[in-house]
Order: sequence, then C-alpha cells, then structure tokens
Amino acid sequence: MNHQPLTSAVTFTLAAVDGAARAGTLHTPHGAVPTPCFMAVATCGGLKGVTVQQAEELGQGVVLGNTYHLALRPGAERVRELGGLHQFSGWRGPMLTDSGGYQVFSLASQRKISDEGVWFRSHLDGTAFNLTPEESIRIQRLLGADIIMAFDECPPSDAPRADIERAVARTSAWLARSVDAWRAEGPYGGAAAQALYPVVQGGLERDLRERSALDALRHDLPGCAVGGLAVGETFTDRNRVLDWVVPMLPAAKPRYLMGVGTPLDLVAAVARGIDQFDCVLPTRMGRHGIAYTDAGPLRIKRAEYGADPRPLDDTPSQAARVSRGYIHHLVKANEMLGGQLLSLHNLAYYRRLMARMRAAIRAGRFAAFHDAYVAGYGDDAEGVPDDGRA
Amino acid sequence: MNHQPLTSAVTFTLAAVDGAARAGTLHTPHGAVPTPCFMAVATCGGLKGVTVQQAEELGQGVVLGNTYHLALRPGAERVRELGGLHQFSGWRGPMLTDSGGYQVFSLASQRKISDEGVWFRSHLDGTAFNLTPEESIRIQRLLGADIIMAFDECPPSDAPRADIERAVARTSAWLARSVDAWRAEGPYGGAAAQALYPVVQGGLERDLRERSALDALRHDLPGCAVGGLAVGETFTDRNRVLDWVVPMLPAAKPRYLMGVGTPLDLVAAVARGIDQFDCVLPTRMGRHGIAYTDAGPLRIKRAEYGADPRPLDDTPSQAARVSRGYIHHLVKANEMLGGQLLSLHNLAYYRRLMARMRAAIRAGRFAAFHDAYVAGYGDDAEGVPDDGRA
Repeated sequence: MNHQPLTSAVTFTLAAVDGAARAGTLHTPHGAVPTPCFMAVATCGGLKGVTVQQAEELGQGVVLGNTYHLALRPGAERVRELGGLHQFSGWRGPMLTDSGGYQVFSLASQRKISDEGVWFRSHLDGTAFNLTPEESIRIQRLLGADIIMAFDECPPSDAPRADIERAVARTSAWLARSVDAWRAEGPYGGAAAQALYPVVQGGLERDLRERSALDALRHDLPGCAVGGLAVGETFTDRNRVLDWVVPMLPAAKPRYLMGVGTPLDLVAAVARGIDQFDCVLPTRMGRHGIAYTDAGPLRIKRAEYGADPRPLDDTPSQAARVSRGYIHHLVKANEMLGGQLLSLHNLAYYRRLMARMRAAIRAGRFAAFHDAYVAGYGDDAEGVPDDGRA
Repeated sequence: MNHQPLTSAVTFTLAAVDGAARAGTLHTPHGAVPTPCFMAVATCGGLKGVTVQQAEELGQGVVLGNTYHLALRPGAERVRELGGLHQFSGWRGPMLTDSGGYQVFSLASQRKISDEGVWFRSHLDGTAFNLTPEESIRIQRLLGADIIMAFDECPPSDAPRADIERAVARTSAWLARSVDAWRAEGPYGGAAAQALYPVVQGGLERDLRERSALDALRHDLPGCAVGGLAVGETFTDRNRVLDWVVPMLPAAKPRYLMGVGTPLDLVAAVARGIDQFDCVLPTRMGRHGIAYTDAGPLRIKRAEYGADPRPLDDTPSQAARVSRGYIHHLVKANEMLGGQLLSLHNLAYYRRLMARMRAAIRAGRFAAFHDAYVAGYGDDAEGVPDDGRA
C-alpha cells in the first residue's frame, strides 16, 4: 500500500505496471475507482440522455461536470444551495470539475485575456463574466467535486510558438494562485475535501511541455493532468507529446489526459501511462447515430442495418436487448430513444474497454491486447464525423 | 373465476365492483395486468425518452404501438422480419396496437374515404397508402400485439350529425370485415393469438352511440373500446357519452377508453366503469416540462422551482432522487435528461394512480378516493398547455 497522507482527499494505489501502462485504484471521498478509467461528461450537471441510475447500472466510475457551463447556468451558488454537485445531480460516485478555462477559450465571445484572468461574455445570453484562478477555485469549491482543476490557458493547436510560450507562463502563474485558493480556509471544499490537479500545457513544443510539466510538479499535488490536446492536432502528434511528458510524471500519482478521446486514442494513451480520461464522444456520437464497437464506429443509419437482427455487439447495456434494425429505425425516425440507447451502449462500451485494458495490464499482456485491438478496429471508420483526430 | 374459453387470446377476470368502478385482471399471452390500467404509448415502437428496462422498473403494464406510424416506417413486414413488435421493441409485457384509423384522419394528407377504405398520403414523405379493414388487420397481425383494434372512422368532435351517422355506418361495416380478417387462417396472428376489440363511435349523439354499441356487441369480441372521444369535446360531454355507453357493455369484458387522458379524466372514467386507457400525455407533457402530481400539473420551468430542494412529489421513480431545482435547471438548459426524468415521473405517477384506484375499488371506498382526489387536484392547473379538454 502506498496511500498518500490522509490529508489528501484523493489518493492513488498502483497495483500493476506493464510496459508504460499501469493499473491502479483512485480513492476519493465518494468511493474508489479502478484505473485506467474513463470519466463520463455531464456538461450541465447531467449526462446527456442517461440517468444517474442507468450510469450506476452500467458501472460508470467518475462523472465530470463543466465549471463554465454550471457557473453560467444555474450558477455555482444555486448548485451549492441545492447541496453541491453530488446532491444536485444525484450522482453518488466520484466527480471531477474542470476549471472553466477550456470553455472560456472555445465558447465564450469577446474574450479579454490578461495575466489577471479572463473577461468574457456568456455564449448563452451575452452576460459579462470574469474568470480568474481564484474565481475558478471558488466556483469549484462551491460545486464540491472530489477532483478539481487548476485554471489554465489552453491555446489552439495551430497557435504560434510565442502564444504557446505565453500560455505556459500564464498557466504557471495561475497554477500558483489556484493552489493558494485551494489550500485556503473557507466554508466549502479546500485541500482536505477536494484534490487539485495541475494542467500541463505547451502545445507541440517539447521544451515548453517539459517546462510546464516541471512547474506543475513542483507543487506536489495529488495528481497531474495533460491539457492542450484534442484541440485539432494529429493522433501522432498527440502521442508524441505523451511520450515526452508522461515519463516526467511521478509513478505514484494519477495522470489525467483531458478531453480524449476515441477508443483508439484511449488504447494509445493507456499504453503511454495515462490513468484517467474524459470525453464527450460516447454520448455525443450516440446522439449522432454512432455506436462504438471493436470493429470500429458503426453508423447505425446505414441502410445495411435496417433489417439487421443482431445487437450492436456483445456489450452489456440496456441497448443489448434490441437489434441494430430497431435502433436504425429509431434514429431514422428521430426518436430520442435511439440516441439514448446508443449513448448507453457507448458509455458501457467505454467502461468495458477500460476494464479489458486493466485486466490485460494486470495479466502482463497489455501489448498483445493493444496490437489485437488496433488491428481489429476501424473497418467501418470511413465517413465517421470529425472528432478532432486527423 | 370467469375466464372465457381458452380460444380467446385475452381474457378478463372481474375481482371487485364499487359503484360503476371495477377492479380486475387482464390475462394476455404476454402476462396478466391488473385493471383499471393505463397503457403507455410507444408511437413508433419505442416509448419517447424511456427504455423498456425503465418501463419495467416503474411497473408499466401494457405498451401501445401505433399501426399508422409503424406501417409507414419501418413497415409492418420489416417489424415482422425482426421478430414482431415485442421482439422489435424489446417489450416483454402485453402490447396493443390501434387500427391506424385515428392517425389517418388526424395526420395524413389528401385523404379519400369511401366505403371500401381510405386512400391517403404519408405525412412523412407524401407516399400514397391505402388502408382498409383487411389491410389494418393484416398489418396488426404482422406486428403481433396481444390486443388489436378494428378499423373505424373517427370524425372530429364538431362534425355534423350526418357525418357522424355515416361514420357509425362505416365503422359497423368495417368492423364486420375486421372480424372476418381477424378470424381468417394465416401465417401470423389470428383470433387465438390476438384479441380484437371493436370501437364504439357516434360522437355526442346518444342514439348513434347506442346504435354503434349494439353493433359492436353483436360480434361477441373479447373486449370493447369507446372511441371518438378526446377529439376536442368537453370533459362534461365526454363523461355523458360514457354514462350512455358503458352501462350497455357486458360486465365480464374489459372496456377501453381510447386516447384519454389527464389524471382527472382517468378518475372520472374509472368511476364510470372503464378498465383500460391510453394517452400520450405522460411522455408528451414530460417533454414539455410538466410533472403530474396530486396537486395538479406542476410546470417545472416556473422560477419558483429554481431553488426548490424537494423532489417532484413522493412518486417512486428515477426522478425521485433529484430536486425540483435540478429538473428546473435541466429543462431551462434544454437538456434532454429533463424531459426524460419528467416522462419517467409521469408514467410512474399514472401507474401509481391506477394502483391507488384499484386499491380503493377493492376496499369499497372508490367514491371517497374520487372526491378527495378531485378536491386536491388542480391548484397549479392554470396555464397548462391545451390537451384537448375544454
């Protein structure tokens, strides 16, 4: 056992290593989760199309809420008034909130960035907001997730080096302020109740990634995230960044790759030592008629599935009782139940994919699993909507 | 025990009578259901926003599919190819299909009605279709529900008497043809596998209602439906029709009031001896932000519910874990999960309302239940979307 001191809200136990891949357990105030794990995204505090009871039934581990969305609507004070994000959403397992930074940079209009923070207008109604490291942590303390994120600047993948370098410097300064706000005494949250993760930025520049990682590590926080990826770069470039950064991170702490990804992305990143993932793809692609399978994404609207009596695949979920032909019909008829069943399937598929990877790591056969999985995947991938992978 | 001969697919056991209200059991090839019962509407073969597993969990009895919608898309042959409506949809309990008549008259364009049947164009893509008594029964045999309906003509509530009289005559002639098609030998369905119900028409004209009822009864079918209501008439007019028709129907057979209604409508019709109901309101109103409660419809979007920590009411459903404030937030944010939770709540509320009525009938205290329920209902009813009741 290598638990960290009890003063940390979240601790990590490493159980097996196979190459760079790791299997372990993340211990949180709302239960333990085996890693590598996929965290489902409840953007506005609810999984899209999936109730918390259904998420429990399919074995979902961590659920993630978006600080930007929740702060704009219904507001962090309202969530706190209704008991915090766990009681608000009904999710009883571990939760994570991001810092709001990513959405400010991707969704908000009329942004003004300074070293102090970001001033922006809501994408909903144009209301003016201000987000600083202190404000992001204050909101995340009100929300009350088990894991919270430091406020960072996430530049686009094609930003000039000077912009990335400035973002790394800001991310470093904002991390120090985030840590102070997280450690501060206060009515809610704090270091004993919530774990703060820093975010490594640096784009595709090796020296900037290394600089950002070293800065993140000097705060000795309970885990570490790699950000600034899944923003338009190629699969190869992303994995190159992981090859630089992950070996720098301490083995005893969990590593979180933000916003990633497709099943192939997850397998590639687990192979490089990542422990935690989040992504909107399982529910978003489900709403768009895509079912993930070992053979690749299955586009259920295709005519060939109209009379197909088989289930999507052998993933246990509420979608397993009905045929591809039935789900094809629902999606063609614009019935919301079609997107719901595909979302349930995809979350269950992701959960089971992580479980299969954990079993392979513990058995010392992850490389064989990886190669077989990659070889089998992709038959149907042609024509799948762009998901950020080139 | 007063089961009908084993040759009937569906039989009815009457267990208790309290005034005109009755409690019994409907026995079908896919299980027995206590009555009075509410049948949930799966228009295109799927409940809107609710999986079959969720419907099982909340205790849903019968599920209804719409012949018109299923015949247009994906087509009855496709449903049969995929195992029939039960296997297609995954619903393992009793099912009922309507005849398609109601939707032809309310949805289709360019209708031409003759004594032979109806020619019309699909509301989806303008494709030409033809529906006759024989074709409706052929489709319903392919679909394979436990209870199927005779093809009838349903005029609007404000139709002139001459139109209603002609519709009663057509309904009578079409019933005889429906019965022949139902009794015929054939590859699927038939009288031993499916129960056929006739439909009593006649608008608000007492003599026409009586004429239609007498005609329906002469075929000695396993049950009887009252149609042509919930088409714009007042609550008072509807109950007057039930007061004329229901006493004419045999006590030993189930009576089905088509397309009704709100909780108050159900209580009023059970008081008059109705055993089966169907209506889209629980899921449709759920998607529109309405939760049914004993105090009346609760409009969750109202500002007063934004910070309300209470559950919708004490109905056990997947919505019971979260607060009114949370569902208010989801609905305001246009999250599909909001409509899903309200649909689950409403179906569970309807199921429990029927169970409470059954218990009251069996205990001989239905009149007291009725009066207390009606007195408590409606506080919040002002401003509820029009649902066909004047």
